[in-house]
Amino acid sequence: MSRLLITNIGELTTNVPVDGDPCGALADAAILIDGGRVAWTGPAADAPTDVDETVDAAGRAALPGFVDSHTHLVFAGDRADEFEARMAGVPYAAGGIRRTVAATRTASDDALRTRLAGFVRELHAQGTTTFEVKTGYDLTVAGEERSARLAAEVTDEVTFLGAHVVPAEYEHNRAAYLDLVCGPMLEAVRPFVRWIDVFCERGAFDPAEAERVLAAGAAAGLGTRVHGNQLGEGEGVRLAVAHGAASVDHCTYLSDADVAALAAGDTVATLLPGVEFSTRHPYPDARGLLDAGVTVALASDCNPGTSFTSSLPLMVALAVREMGMTVGEAVWAATAGGARALRRTDIGHLGVGARADVVVLDAPTRTHLAYRPGVPLVREVYVGGKRVA
Amino acid sequence: MSRLLITNIGELTTNVPVDGDPCGALADAAILIDGGRVAWTGPAADAPTDVDETVDAAGRAALPGFVDSHTHLVFAGDRADEFEARMAGVPYAAGGIRRTVAATRTASDDALRTRLAGFVRELHAQGTTTFEVKTGYDLTVAGEERSARLAAEVTDEVTFLGAHVVPAEYEHNRAAYLDLVCGPMLEAVRPFVRWIDVFCERGAFDPAEAERVLAAGAAAGLGTRVHGNQLGEGEGVRLAVAHGAASVDHCTYLSDADVAALAAGDTVATLLPGVEFSTRHPYPDARGLLDAGVTVALASDCNPGTSFTSSLPLMVALAVREMGMTVGEAVWAATAGGARALRRTDIGHLGVGARADVVVLDAPTRTHLAYRPGVPLVREVYVGGKRVA
Repeated sequence: MSRLLITNIGELTTNVPVDGDPCGALADAAILIDGGRVAWTGPAADAPTDVDETVDAAGRAALPGFVDSHTHLVFAGDRADEFEARMAGVPYAAGGIRRTVAATRTASDDALRTRLAGFVRELHAQGTTTFEVKTGYDLTVAGEERSARLAAEVTDEVTFLGAHVVPAEYEHNRAAYLDLVCGPMLEAVRPFVRWIDVFCERGAFDPAEAERVLAAGAAAGLGTRVHGNQLGEGEGVRLAVAHGAASVDHCTYLSDADVAALAAGDTVATLLPGVEFSTRHPYPDARGLLDAGVTVALASDCNPGTSFTSSLPLMVALAVREMGMTVGEAVWAATAGGARALRRTDIGHLGVGARADVVVLDAPTRTHLAYRPGVPLVREVYVGGKRVA
Repeated sequence: MSRLLITNIGELTTNVPVDGDPCGALADAAILIDGGRVAWTGPAADAPTDVDETVDAAGRAALPGFVDSHTHLVFAGDRADEFEARMAGVPYAAGGIRRTVAATRTASDDALRTRLAGFVRELHAQGTTTFEVKTGYDLTVAGEERSARLAAEVTDEVTFLGAHVVPAEYEHNRAAYLDLVCGPMLEAVRPFVRWIDVFCERGAFDPAEAERVLAAGAAAGLGTRVHGNQLGEGEGVRLAVAHGAASVDHCTYLSDADVAALAAGDTVATLLPGVEFSTRHPYPDARGLLDAGVTVALASDCNPGTSFTSSLPLMVALAVREMGMTVGEAVWAATAGGARALRRTDIGHLGVGARADVVVLDAPTRTHLAYRPGVPLVREVYVGGKRVA
């Protein structure tokens, strides 16, 4: 594989800590990619010359590709009407997740695959180079297997979320649905998934149910993740930390004890400000989490109900505007933080040996991601050293 | 010029009122463009067949191009550091507008022209097909003439904003600066500009000064616009309405009397939520203005200090999330509203005879502009029937 040098980078964010800067920013820098991996970073003036191709970044900023550790991209239909009603303050009782389940169940493989391919293009265009995808919009054994299989065609980070909600047909028989999730459904998806997740929230699954799901997943060799504390305080965070889950996602409503548990444990707090943007809930207190020493990730939660954005640049801007994060903290959370939430060491940074996932911005510094909200600043995107957008 | 048919449009927003819907949305529609103008719109099934070229929108939404009636795009440098400090809550006394003035004065024509061309590409890529550009970052006679001339190379809607702030060298001689603005500077820019604007706000120009600027501009045959009520209540709105200004921009802090004056007058209230996003001021009360019968426009105020976004899709999303507008109202305000703020009847709608400025979204409805915040949904952009992005 050829040696590619990207040089004349005005500001290179490496996320390899330098002098107390966790973002490890280098000015007037270059990066050498060899065999799809980072082979060298440093001052442009010192860059290796034995290269096959050189890209001149002309003073632009570059950073590690975004790592979106929380998406729900296997589904059919949308819920734009529900969004519009919610924004107008009109109560809307159209079934939420179950509406998407109904649409997804009747969609063809091809339809789901085409939709997913569109999302992948969209993610790449916005600088996301690794993304997790959850199942959870079918909730039958065959359908969850299909969702997991289709997701595995586009990413290594597939999460089984049979425990998203209890489907209508099991409404009066929750225990039987849990038997299904923890038995045949888990077995069917197993070849395609790395993670198991559960929506631990009033109206979804209670702590005892969530515990059972996580235990079954762990016994099957899956890593664990939890949706928790989205709609109010609850047991999600406590449970996630106790289980050593890689991440607990949402963290919108936290008690002091939750923050302390996160600070003491090994579980990443993944914040999803697209949800708060699209539901008008208060934004999570990122500042408080960071000040307590918690590892924070930012992700999109891209889904048709509560956050139909796939834009990590906008999540960075919201984190700075609404959640008290500095630009450096927000960019770190959307790159290195996402990688930690997926327990990956090969992505989320540009240290030597890392996968060469690089984004070049149409801007001189990463600050412009927050300073220029909504503007499509992503200019070039490399995944494993190969240009994808 | 050839006849272009865009057909199979899932939702065509025309802004030609139909049955009480000001957005005049048509389902399964087509639009015929002839000689750069809209020649016909209607059901796709009834579309004319004697065409030279057909574009299949495959069910996507289309709408009039965005009209951004408020930008400041002739400048050098940026103020990312000031933005970052403000977001961190750190007081930052680095000179604000005057810093950009200093950078702009020393920039070459070529540097300003290149920057401006970049902004035009950026605007087109986000669906903006008409944009106003203000001078006001040089504040010398020769420099304002240069800014106006360069702006006139890229738009017909150039605004003279010599009365942006009093430059440092006139700090102790405001009257002399006003003489300059209303005399030689106005004369120098006159061949290139259609509008005159004044920043009527504590710290900029007081009502008597603003009045003098507007009167001088009107006497020179220019249309009038006012920056008003951005940082607190004041005389900006009253003055604008009394002068019959086309628009008063910001309207963040309004009294009941201001709202009543706007409702009774002929002046558009142009709201600039990018400013509130980037400064953490409260968002203007669009709902209250609309309910009072005021004509509302949305614009970006793209400038390096208080709102360095050029994204009208994000302004639509913010208007829905933060300002109580429906999606239809927000899209209307960013298209037809902007046209009214520029007193233009040929743009901002897709009635027969309008300039064929059309945006095709990668989405089935315009609702997705708010439902999918931050996602680059603009797929195709036509200005006068010619594809630009």
